[in-house]
Amino acid sequence: MKVQHYTATPAEPVPGAEGVTVRWVIKEADGAPHFAMRLFEVPPGGASELHTHWWEHEIYFLAGAGHIHGEQADHPVAEGTVAFVPGGELHQVVNDGPGVLRFICLVPHQRPG
Amino acid sequence: MKVQHYTATPAEPVPGAEGVTVRWVIKEADGAPHFAMRLFEVPPGGASELHTHWWEHEIYFLAGAGHIHGEQADHPVAEGTVAFVPGGELHQVVNDGPGVLRFICLVPHQRPG
Repeated sequence: MKVQHYTATPAEPVPGAEGVTVRWVIKEADGAPHFAMRLFEVPPGGASELHTHWWEHEIYFLAGAGHIHGEQADHPVAEGTVAFVPGGELHQVVNDGPGVLRFICLVPHQRPG
Repeated sequence: MKVQHYTATPAEPVPGAEGVTVRWVIKEADGAPHFAMRLFEVPPGGASELHTHWWEHEIYFLAGAGHIHGEQADHPVAEGTVAFVPGGELHQVVNDGPGVLRFICLVPHQRPG
């Protein structure tokens, strides 16, 4: 069992998203067999890259205010918002609030083949 | 894309854990292909069942104070604590604080075979 505060995991910059950081708080190297938990922080005015990929996202918003820009619409998000983004769907997380937008985002392990 | 506050998902009682509720905020019926997100609330003095199973838990604590009772030790938890519980390891989440202990807990889909 691994139990620790999220800040015990170092924050790394996210390429292509200025000021955005990610902490891989639960990953395959911890023994997680199926999926990983990451914690992201987006500064005011910042955003994740607008992108798409085969894998899904399961997201829980912890703090801040912003929106998810999707293919069909923009969805406002704040503390307590849950988001499921299916694989193959274009998406971007945007911070349009005054503080840091913090969320966890889980993804399946990305194995080749 | 599904985006909504966690309270939009009904809270259901958890058998074997008095006063504990679960909301299946992202589940297979939402199109999630690999794993599910649940949000639990444990009342003061309450606890999840002491149990073990083949699947892992990936947990993020949102509010409250308590501990995870494990095979080797008890681990204190509070807002911002991350826990990975491997499959096959005995565990129990205990609320020993004055307020509700709230956490999200993700599990792989449990398919027979």
